[in-house]
Amino acid sequence: MKHDYPLAFQELANLLKTLPGIGKRSAERMVFSMLKWPPEKLALLGTSVSELHERVTLCPECGNLSSDGAPCGICMNNSRDKTLICVVEDASQIYNIENSGLFKGVYHVIGGKLSPLEGKGIKDIHIQSLVKRIDANAVKEVILAFSSDVEGQATSIYIGEELKRKNVSVTRLAHGLPAGSDISYADSATIAAALHGRRPL
Amino acid sequence: MKHDYPLAFQELANLLKTLPGIGKRSAERMVFSMLKWPPEKLALLGTSVSELHERVTLCPECGNLSSDGAPCGICMNNSRDKTLICVVEDASQIYNIENSGLFKGVYHVIGGKLSPLEGKGIKDIHIQSLVKRIDANAVKEVILAFSSDVEGQATSIYIGEELKRKNVSVTRLAHGLPAGSDISYADSATIAAALHGRRPL
Repeated sequence: MKHDYPLAFQELANLLKTLPGIGKRSAERMVFSMLKWPPEKLALLGTSVSELHERVTLCPECGNLSSDGAPCGICMNNSRDKTLICVVEDASQIYNIENSGLFKGVYHVIGGKLSPLEGKGIKDIHIQSLVKRIDANAVKEVILAFSSDVEGQATSIYIGEELKRKNVSVTRLAHGLPAGSDISYADSATIAAALHGRRPL
Repeated sequence: MKHDYPLAFQELANLLKTLPGIGKRSAERMVFSMLKWPPEKLALLGTSVSELHERVTLCPECGNLSSDGAPCGICMNNSRDKTLICVVEDASQIYNIENSGLFKGVYHVIGGKLSPLEGKGIKDIHIQSLVKRIDANAVKEVILAFSSDVEGQATSIYIGEELKRKNVSVTRLAHGLPAGSDISYADSATIAAALHGRRPL
């Protein structure tokens, strides 16, 4: 006869299990750990979670994370080039690109990739607000920074087509060998992309 | 210049980071995932966490997880042998042992192992309540089910000494090769334990 965890324990573990990278066992370990937390820390986590949507808002300009409904730090920063927009699928990717420290323009979170298999279509991505920003800020270049998978490429192509009528140059990130990688382990699609996009030395 | 997450995002990620097995990146991924949850689900998780201590209580008899301050399902079960007590370090280990389906006695959560390096001494383990239970239920056997590390062994020895005056047989789990393991990969301490505890065929 299997001995079950108390109901409230199971409920919490089941909620945690829906987080990315958290399986049944990890969720249970997390609850056991929380049971040993002091009440104040539990209350703090509870409030942080409950009020997450109120405390972390989306930048009305670009869709990046922000606070109190205000524009994000990047959109508020006057030294950033507003005529150069990097389009990303998700706000989390802005932080990856910012960490490289090389991009001095602004971002636009498109909110998803076109994926017919997952029922994600044109209506699910924020392209109208992108078009408006291009018009309003006399944008010179739009960099499409999508993953190099099929959905990412389809989304790039669709946005490229949509922006054709605009007087804006549309580019996408280079595909090829990742930094520090051993060519022996590169798959053939990566090698094909690297050959196709080869550059003069 | 590093672009930081909003303050409330960082606060939540920092709390999640203190959970076992959750690093900085996993915590951030969890917050990004929660940001996409519907408000009802966030509120549910928030309440589950805040009210964890009220909803999951400890069995007043054995220290196992329970609800509403009531004794746990194992202590309430009249078909369990109350004269056989398995002593474990932590309530989580009860579920491991229950899953084997072989133990028909009851448990006692001692609440820790003796570990001078971590400042855990005799006062931190619930041995007085164990002694009381032994007296009250005419317990015949106490099985010490601690991990086979130094602290676990020290705790076994200490409890064994404490119970010497009682008319109760004290045993510990067998140490040896784990089920299905390849002897080629067994470390020498395991082989030593397996040799020492060898049994006639």
